[in-house]
Amino acid sequence: MELEDILKKVKIGELSIEDAVKTLKKMPYEELGFAKLDHHRKVRKGYGEVILCEGKSKDHLINIFKHFAENDVDVLGTRASKEQFESIKEIIENVEYDDLSRILKLKRSSYKNLGNIAICTGGTSDIPVAEEAAQTAEFFGSKVLRIYDVGVAGIHRLLSKVDEISSANCIIAVAGMEGALPGVIAGMVDKPVIAVPTSVGYGTNFNGISSLLTMLNSCAEGIAVVNIDNGFGAGYIANQINQLVVNSNGK
Amino acid sequence: MELEDILKKVKIGELSIEDAVKTLKKMPYEELGFAKLDHHRKVRKGYGEVILCEGKSKDHLINIFKHFAENDVDVLGTRASKEQFESIKEIIENVEYDDLSRILKLKRSSYKNLGNIAICTGGTSDIPVAEEAAQTAEFFGSKVLRIYDVGVAGIHRLLSKVDEISSANCIIAVAGMEGALPGVIAGMVDKPVIAVPTSVGYGTNFNGISSLLTMLNSCAEGIAVVNIDNGFGAGYIANQINQLVVNSNGK
Amino acid sequence: MELEDILKKVKIGELSIEDAVKTLKKMPYEELGFAKLDHHRKVRKGYGEVILCEGKSKDHLINIFKHFAENDVDVLGTRASKEQFESIKEIIENVEYDDLSRILKLKRSSYKNLGNIAICTGGTSDIPVAEEAAQTAEFFGSKVLRIYDVGVAGIHRLLSKVDEISSANCIIAVAGMEGALPGVIAGMVDKPVIAVPTSVGYGTNFNGISSLLTMLNSCAEGIAVVNIDNGFGAGYIANQINQLVVNSNGK
Amino acid sequence: MELEDILKKVKIGELSIEDAVKTLKKMPYEELGFAKLDHHRKVRKGYGEVILCEGKSKDHLINIFKHFAENDVDVLGTRASKEQFESIKEIIENVEYDDLSRILKLKRSSYKNLGNIAICTGGTSDIPVAEEAAQTAEFFGSKVLRIYDVGVAGIHRLLSKVDEISSANCIIAVAGMEGALPGVIAGMVDKPVIAVPTSVGYGTNFNGISSLLTMLNSCAEGIAVVNIDNGFGAGYIANQINQLVVNSNGK
Amino acid sequence: MELEDILKKVKIGELSIEDAVKTLKKMPYEELGFAKLDHHRKVRKGYGEVILCEGKSKDHLINIFKHFAENDVDVLGTRASKEQFESIKEIIENVEYDDLSRILKLKRSSYKNLGNIAICTGGTSDIPVAEEAAQTAEFFGSKVLRIYDVGVAGIHRLLSKVDEISSANCIIAVAGMEGALPGVIAGMVDKPVIAVPTSVGYGTNFNGISSLLTMLNSCAEGIAVVNIDNGFGAGYIANQINQLVVNSNGK
Amino acid sequence: MELEDILKKVKIGELSIEDAVKTLKKMPYEELGFAKLDHHRKVRKGYGEVILCEGKSKDHLINIFKHFAENDVDVLGTRASKEQFESIKEIIENVEYDDLSRILKLKRSSYKNLGNIAICTGGTSDIPVAEEAAQTAEFFGSKVLRIYDVGVAGIHRLLSKVDEISSANCIIAVAGMEGALPGVIAGMVDKPVIAVPTSVGYGTNFNGISSLLTMLNSCAEGIAVVNIDNGFGAGYIANQINQLVVNSNGK
Amino acid sequence: MELEDILKKVKIGELSIEDAVKTLKKMPYEELGFAKLDHHRKVRKGYGEVILCEGKSKDHLINIFKHFAENDVDVLGTRASKEQFESIKEIIENVEYDDLSRILKLKRSSYKNLGNIAICTGGTSDIPVAEEAAQTAEFFGSKVLRIYDVGVAGIHRLLSKVDEISSANCIIAVAGMEGALPGVIAGMVDKPVIAVPTSVGYGTNFNGISSLLTMLNSCAEGIAVVNIDNGFGAGYIANQINQLVVNSNGK
Amino acid sequence: MELEDILKKVKIGELSIEDAVKTLKKMPYEELGFAKLDHHRKVRKGYGEVILCEGKSKDHLINIFKHFAENDVDVLGTRASKEQFESIKEIIENVEYDDLSRILKLKRSSYKNLGNIAICTGGTSDIPVAEEAAQTAEFFGSKVLRIYDVGVAGIHRLLSKVDEISSANCIIAVAGMEGALPGVIAGMVDKPVIAVPTSVGYGTNFNGISSLLTMLNSCAEGIAVVNIDNGFGAGYIANQINQLVVNSNGK
Repeated sequence: MELEDILKKVKIGELSIEDAVKTLKKMPYEELGFAKLDHHRKVRKGYGEVILCEGKSKDHLINIFKHFAENDVDVLGTRASKEQFESIKEIIENVEYDDLSRILKLKRSSYKNLGNIAICTGGTSDIPVAEEAAQTAEFFGSKVLRIYDVGVAGIHRLLSKVDEISSANCIIAVAGMEGALPGVIAGMVDKPVIAVPTSVGYGTNFNGISSLLTMLNSCAEGIAVVNIDNGFGAGYIANQINQLVVNSNGK
Repeated sequence: MELEDILKKVKIGELSIEDAVKTLKKMPYEELGFAKLDHHRKVRKGYGEVILCEGKSKDHLINIFKHFAENDVDVLGTRASKEQFESIKEIIENVEYDDLSRILKLKRSSYKNLGNIAICTGGTSDIPVAEEAAQTAEFFGSKVLRIYDVGVAGIHRLLSKVDEISSANCIIAVAGMEGALPGVIAGMVDKPVIAVPTSVGYGTNFNGISSLLTMLNSCAEGIAVVNIDNGFGAGYIANQINQLVVNSNGK
Repeated sequence: MELEDILKKVKIGELSIEDAVKTLKKMPYEELGFAKLDHHRKVRKGYGEVILCEGKSKDHLINIFKHFAENDVDVLGTRASKEQFESIKEIIENVEYDDLSRILKLKRSSYKNLGNIAICTGGTSDIPVAEEAAQTAEFFGSKVLRIYDVGVAGIHRLLSKVDEISSANCIIAVAGMEGALPGVIAGMVDKPVIAVPTSVGYGTNFNGISSLLTMLNSCAEGIAVVNIDNGFGAGYIANQINQLVVNSNGK
Repeated sequence: MELEDILKKVKIGELSIEDAVKTLKKMPYEELGFAKLDHHRKVRKGYGEVILCEGKSKDHLINIFKHFAENDVDVLGTRASKEQFESIKEIIENVEYDDLSRILKLKRSSYKNLGNIAICTGGTSDIPVAEEAAQTAEFFGSKVLRIYDVGVAGIHRLLSKVDEISSANCIIAVAGMEGALPGVIAGMVDKPVIAVPTSVGYGTNFNGISSLLTMLNSCAEGIAVVNIDNGFGAGYIANQINQLVVNSNGK
Repeated sequence: MELEDILKKVKIGELSIEDAVKTLKKMPYEELGFAKLDHHRKVRKGYGEVILCEGKSKDHLINIFKHFAENDVDVLGTRASKEQFESIKEIIENVEYDDLSRILKLKRSSYKNLGNIAICTGGTSDIPVAEEAAQTAEFFGSKVLRIYDVGVAGIHRLLSKVDEISSANCIIAVAGMEGALPGVIAGMVDKPVIAVPTSVGYGTNFNGISSLLTMLNSCAEGIAVVNIDNGFGAGYIANQINQLVVNSNGK
Repeated sequence: MELEDILKKVKIGELSIEDAVKTLKKMPYEELGFAKLDHHRKVRKGYGEVILCEGKSKDHLINIFKHFAENDVDVLGTRASKEQFESIKEIIENVEYDDLSRILKLKRSSYKNLGNIAICTGGTSDIPVAEEAAQTAEFFGSKVLRIYDVGVAGIHRLLSKVDEISSANCIIAVAGMEGALPGVIAGMVDKPVIAVPTSVGYGTNFNGISSLLTMLNSCAEGIAVVNIDNGFGAGYIANQINQLVVNSNGK
Repeated sequence: MELEDILKKVKIGELSIEDAVKTLKKMPYEELGFAKLDHHRKVRKGYGEVILCEGKSKDHLINIFKHFAENDVDVLGTRASKEQFESIKEIIENVEYDDLSRILKLKRSSYKNLGNIAICTGGTSDIPVAEEAAQTAEFFGSKVLRIYDVGVAGIHRLLSKVDEISSANCIIAVAGMEGALPGVIAGMVDKPVIAVPTSVGYGTNFNGISSLLTMLNSCAEGIAVVNIDNGFGAGYIANQINQLVVNSNGK
Repeated sequence: MELEDILKKVKIGELSIEDAVKTLKKMPYEELGFAKLDHHRKVRKGYGEVILCEGKSKDHLINIFKHFAENDVDVLGTRASKEQFESIKEIIENVEYDDLSRILKLKRSSYKNLGNIAICTGGTSDIPVAEEAAQTAEFFGSKVLRIYDVGVAGIHRLLSKVDEISSANCIIAVAGMEGALPGVIAGMVDKPVIAVPTSVGYGTNFNGISSLLTMLNSCAEGIAVVNIDNGFGAGYIANQINQLVVNSNGK
C-alpha cells in the first residue's frame, strides 16, 4: 500500500520529510487509500460497475466492457439498445441482453439472491421500467417479487396482494398516468416505498411530470421518489435497503 | 312579445318593411326572443342568480343584492368575505352567510332537495371547498350526501363507504396534495365523478397543480375535472346532472 | 357462490371457525363477492371492456382480444394503430377499425342507441378527437348528434345550432388552439358540458395546454374538463350522464 | 444647432479637421441631431412623457414631476398609489389622480379627443385595467367608447353591441379568467383588436397566464396581445393606430 | 334578401305571424342578414378566404380549393407543405406556392398594393416567418418594405435603417433567440410595432418562449405581440392597420 | 372479534347464511379484521399517530389531541404554530413544542433510540427542515447524528465527516439553493440517501424546484427524494429503513 | 504544521507506521494542509468573508460578526435588513450599512480600488441590484464605473456611453422587464459582460424569468448570466476577472 | 477615411454645410467611423467571424464561406452538420470539420495559443459541448487544458485535479443531469468559472433545465452561466477573460 510505503521510506530515511509532504500533496486523492473512499470502492466493486449506455458510442462502450471483462469485474449496463448489445457481443461472448428492461450485463461471479423486494406496477406499460428496477436489484444480490398491473383504478386487484407486498423489506411502486399507486401502497404497509414515476400517458401527463408530482405529494407516510423512468435508481436504493437487512444481525 | 309585435305592425302596414329590417338589425339579440336564449335565462332565473363576490367592492355588491332582493330573485354569492356579508346584512336583513364555504345567499323561494349527490373529500382541509360544492348543489335543488376525510392513504375508510357512494346519481370528489381520490372512486362506482383539485398541500403541490394533473390523468373511466378550489363549479354541474335524473322519465 | 359455500361449510361443521377466518382473510378481495365491486364489474361487463392500445405490443393485444372474443365480451380499443388492427384482424375476423378515431372494436351484442349527446368541435382538425368521443359513447349505448366546425371565431355558425345543442342531455365540446368553444356553449345552454381540449395549434398552444387552461377557467357555469385529446374519457362520462336519463324514471 | 456649428467652425478654420473628428466621436449620440431620433423625441414630447410610478420612491417621483412641471411637459404616471399621489400633490397643485386606473397625471395642454377606440371588458373586475387603457388613449388624444361587462359566457350581451364596436378604428378587448373575448370580437369585426389579458381569476388562471395563452392562440384573425394587466400598453398602441387615421388623408 | 322576403310574405298574408316567428328563430344567424356580420363577411370576401393547411388531408384541401376556385374567391393557404401544393396543382392549375413562407395561394383578382408596412428580422433564420407576414400583407393589398437581418447584437445595422422604418404606417418586427428587436425599434420610431417571436434558437429559447416573453415585457411603448412563428397573424393585423390609413381621409 | 362472532352465530344457527352474507358485505372494511390492515394499524399505533397541524383550526386540533391523550396514544404534530401549541397546552399539560422544527408532540411511552441515522444539511438555513426530520425519526425510535452546514461549496467540510456519515444505516441530506449535497454524499458512501430539497434560496431557486430537480437528476446511485421542505417524510422513511436493521437478525 | 509533525514523529519512531496511517485517515481533510485548499482559503481570507444575512436570526448573525471582528477579518453581509444592521451595531460599532444595496459590512483593512468594472442598468428600478454588485466589487478591491438608466428602449442613451463602457476590463449589465441590455452592450464592446436579470416588471416578467431567458439566449457573443437579482454574484465574478488584469503581467 | 473627407470638402468649400449635415444623417452608422464600433469590428475581424450553421441552407452557407475566403477572413462555424461541411468542401478546399464539436472552420492566419483555460466535464457525454467550447477558445487564441469526466458523483476524481484547475485564468465547467460540477469547482478555486449546462439526462432533467437551475443557484461564489449546450458562448467569453491576462501588464 502506497501510503504505508511513503511512511516507511520516511522512517528509514529514504525520503526527506519535505519530499514526503510534497508527494502526499500531489498524489491523486484516491491513492492516499483513505478508508472511507476505498471501502466504498471495494463495496461497489464487490457488486460490479454500472454504465449508462444511452448516448455512448459503440467504440466507447466496447472499450469499457473489454476493460472490465479483462479485470473480471461484473458490469451492469442500463438503457442499452439492441445495436449496442450486438456490437459488444461480437467482442465479448458471454454478455447478456434483456429487450424489455434494455439491460446489458456481464456477470460471472455467482451468488445467492437474498432478502425480499416487492416490485408493483400500475399498468402493463410500466413493466419495462419495473424490470429495469427488478433486474438491477437482482444483479446486486436481492430477491425480487414481481406484482404487476395492480393500479388503483381497480383497487380490488391491489387489495388481494397486500399480504405479499407487506412481507417485503422494501417496496418499489412503479406508475405512470396519475401515479397514485405508491401512495395507496404506503397507506397499507409499513415498509419503505420507493416510488418510480413513468412517462406512460399522454396530454397533461407531460411525460411523467403528473406521476412525479403525485408521488412527491402523497399523503401517506413512507415514500421517497426517484427520477421519471429511473428503474435503475429505484432498484439500486431498494437493494441497499434490502442488503441492510440481509447483512445485519440487529444493532 | 316584441318580435311578434313588429311582425304584426308590418302586417297591418304600421311599419314599412324597410324600417322593420332596420329595427330587427338594431335590436339587442336577446330582445329578439329566441327560444334558446330566453329559455336558458328562464331556467337560470328559476334557480336564481350567481355572483362571484371576491374582488367586488362593498357598494357594488350591495347594489347587486338590492336589485335582486327587490325583484324577488334568489342569489348565490361565492367566495364572499365576512366583511362583505356584514355590509350587505345592514341593508338586506335575511341574507345568510356560511363561514366555512364563504357562501353568501339570499333564498326566499321554498323547494324540495331531490335526487342524490355524494360529496367526498380526501382530508379535513378539503372541507371548505367541498362545502362550497355541497351548498351550491343544495341551493339549486339537489340532495347532498357528505362523506368527508376518506383519502386514499387509508384506503379502508373509503372502502367502507362504497355502497353509499354508489347510490348517488353523481359524485363530487374533492382532494388536495396528491389528488388520487377521484380516480380510486371512479374505479369503484359506475357514476359520473366530478373531480375538484384543491390547493391544500405545500412544496411541489404548487397550489393545486399536482392534484389537478393527477385528476386529469386518471386511469379510471368516468371523471371530469374543474378548476382548482372550484367547489362552486363542481356543485353546479353535479346539480345539472342530478336534475337530469330528477326531471326525467327515461327517453 | 364462494362466500356462501364457506358459511355453509362452517354451519355443517366441515370447516372450523378458525380456518374460515383464515380463508376469508387470504381470499382475493373480489372473490368475497361484495356487492359494490361485483355490481360494478357486472355493469362494466354489460357495456364491454376498454383497452388503451397505444404502447402495447402486437402479441399482448392479440392475446387480450382473443381472451375477450372467446368469452363473448365486447371490447373497445382506443388509440390503436392501423398496424395493430391488421395484426388482430388476422386472428379475429369481425374486429372493426376506424381510421379517424383510431378506435378498434369487437362488438357482437346488439342494442339500441338511446338518449342524446351533442358533440361539437371548434374546427375540422378537432374531428379525430371528437370521433373518439362519439364512437365511445355509441359503443356504450348512446345516440350522438355531431355538430362540427362551429368555433367561436365565426360565432354565427354556432348560434344557428343552439336549439339542436340544447336538446341533448349532455354536450361534449372539443376545441384546440384557444379552446373557447365549451365556455360559449355553456353560456347558451343549461346542460352539463364536458370540455375536451385538443393539441391542435402551434407555438404557445403548447400541445393543448392553452385550450386546457381556457376550459378550466371558463366564466360560464356547467363545464368539466378531461385530459388533452382524451375523446374517450369525454365519451365515457357523457354516456354515463346520458344513461342516467335513459335508465331513470325520476327520483 | 450644434452639428452645423462644428461644420461652420471647420469651414472658417476655427476648428481643425482632426479636432472636429474627435469632437464628433465624443458627442452624445442624440446631440448629433439625427432627424430620426430627434423627430421621435419631438413627437413624444408633443404627447407628453410617461412614468411607471410603481416601485419608485416618493422623492424620486416628486423630482421627476417637478422637472416636467417646470418645463411645461404633460406627464402620465401609471400604476401610482394614492400615497404617491398625495406626496406629489403637496408640491404640484394641479396633478390629478384616478383611483380605479391608478393613473396620476399632469396635463395642461388643451386638445380635442379624436377618432374612435372601443374598449370592451369581459367582466366588471377587468375594468381597472380597461380604464388604464382608456385614460392612456384619452391622454394622448383619442376618443374612447367604453363597452364593459360583455364577456362570452353570456354571448347575447356582446352581440347587441357589435355595431358600436365595428364603428371604431381599433378595439381594445380586456379579459381575465378564460380570456376568450378578444377572439370572439375579432371574429365579428374587421378592425385591429389589441387584446389585454388580466390577472382576474384563481387556480389555473395562474395570474393571467390562462387568458394570455387564449389570446395568443386565437383562431380569429386580427389580434395582437400585450402583457398581462398592461392597460397602458394597449392604450398607447391603440392610440397610435387611431392617430394614423386621424392624421391621414389616405396614401 | 331573405329577411325582407319573410316580412313581405307576412305583409301580404302569405305567411302567418306564428310561422314567421318560427322561421326567424330557426334560420341560421348569418341568413338574417345583420349588417354587422354581413359587412364583415363582405369585407373578408373582398380580400379572399384564409385556410390553415397544416394538418389537413389532401382530399379535404382539394375540395376547399375547388369550391373557392369555382366561386371566384381568392384563397390564401398558410403552413402548406410542398406535397399539398403538388396535389392541388394537379386539379387547379393557377395555384401558386412559395417554398420559404409555405404560402399556397390562388389569386385572380388584380389590385394595387398600397400604403407601407416595414418588416424587419433579427437574423436570416427568421426570414421564413417574416415572409409569411409579408406575403399575407401583400395578398390583402399592402405594400411591404423588407428590412432583414438587423438584429440588436450589431446595433449599427439597425440604426442605419431607422429612417426607412419610420416611414411605414406599421412595423412588423420578427425575432427569435432573445427577441429584443421589436423593443429597440419601438424605442426609435413612433408607429405601432407588431412583434412576432420565432422559435429560432436552442436550449432556454424553449421554442420561442424566450422571445415571446421579451416582447411582452418590452419597456418601449407601442408594441403588441402575436403567437410564436405566427407570421400570418402579424401580416393580417398589420394590413388592417395599414388599410385604415389607405382608406381614410381623417376622422 | 366480530368476524369470528358472525361465524359462530352461523354455526349455532343464530344467523342464517343469507343474513351473514348481507352483514359481511355491509361491515366497514377494517372491521373485518384483515391481518394486513390491522397489523399495519397496530404497527402504526405502536409508534403513535401523526397530525399535520398547518391549516387546522384550534378547536379541531384540541379535540384530536384530547382524544389521543385519553387513549394514551403518542402524537406527533408537524408544521404547528406557536399559537396552536399554546392553545393545546392550556388543555393538555405535558404537550411539548419545538420552535425550530415546529413539531408539537405528546409522548408518554418510554423507549430507547436505536440504530443510526445521519442527517446532513448544506447550510444553516436548512436546519429547521433537518430538525423536523431528526425529531420525527427520534419520535419513532431512531438514534440521530446531526452533521449540519457541510454544503458542497466548501467541499473540505464534508470530506472531514465522511467516516461518521458512512457509519449510519441511512442518511438524510437536506439542501436548498443548488441542492447538490445528496448527490455528493451518495457518491462517497454506500448507504441509502434520502434527499430533502428545501425552499431556501431566491430567484431561480423557485421555492425549492431547483434543489428538487438537482436531487432527482443526481448521477450518483442510492438517492430517493421527498417533497420540498418535507423533513417529516424524510424522517419517517429513514426511520423505517433504520428499524429494518434494528429489528432484524438477518434473513 | 501538522502533516510534517506526523512525518517527523514517524521518522524518530515516536509514532508507528500503523498509527500514522490511522491518524492520517481520520484527520479532517483541511488539516492535511493540502496546498490547493489552503491556498484557496488564504486567498479568500485576504479578501474577507461573505455572509448571506437574509433568513438568519439576529443572534446567529451577531455571533458570526463578533467572531470575525475578534479575528480581524473583513466581512461582507448581503441582503441584510435594517433591523439586522441595528442589532449588530449595538455590539460592533464600526459596522456599516447601505440602505439601497442592503449591504452590511465590516471593513478595517485599507487598500486601493484598482482596474475598472463598468456597471450599467436598464432602468432606475434596477439600481439596488446594481449597487449590490458595485459595492461587492469595491469591497474586494475593484474600481467601479456606474452608468445607470441606459435601457434599450431609448438606445441613444446607451450609444453615447459606448466609449466609457468599452474602457472597462469587465462589464456588469443589470436589467429587468425584457432584459435586452446585456445583449446590446455585448454587441458593441469586446469585453466579458456579466448579465444580471432583475425581478423588476410585472405579469409575464414572472419575477425575472423573462429577463433571465433573454440574457441566456442573447445572439451577441461574450455574455454569461447569474441568478435573478444576484448583484453580489455578478460583483464577485467581475472582481475576479478585473483582478486577473490588475495582478497580471501578461503570460 | 470618409468622415474626414466630408470635413475636408466642407473646409475647402466643395460641400455646403447644409449638404454635409444631410450626408452625415443619411450615412449608415458604421460608416461614420466611430472609434467604438470600428475598433470593435477590427478586434473581431482580427479573431475572425462566427457563423451559426444550424438552420442555414447549403447555398446560403457556401456564399458566406466564399465571401470570407475571398477576403482572407478566418471563419468559425458552429453546430454544422457533416452534410454542410461536405457541400462547402467541394467549393473551398481547406475548410476543416470536427465531428465531435460540430465545428466547421476556415483558419489561415497563424498564431500562438496563449494563457490558460481549464475545461472540465462531469461525464463523457458532456464532451461534445466541452469540445465546442475548447475549439472556440483555441480558434480565438487561447491555450486549453482538457479535464474530462470528473463529475461530483465520484468526488475523488475531481479532488486529484484541483491544482491543475487552479492554475488556469478561467475555468469552463460543463455538466448535464444534476449539473453540480461548476459549484463544487468554484468552491475550490478562486478563478472565474463559466458554467455550461448540457441537455444530457432524461426525465426531470427537462433537456438541461435541471442543470441550468443548479448552476444559477450555486452557493459558491464566482460562477456565471451560459445557455444550455452553448459551448461556443462559454469558449468565447472564457477567451475574452483569458486574453485580458495575455494582453495586460497590470493596471
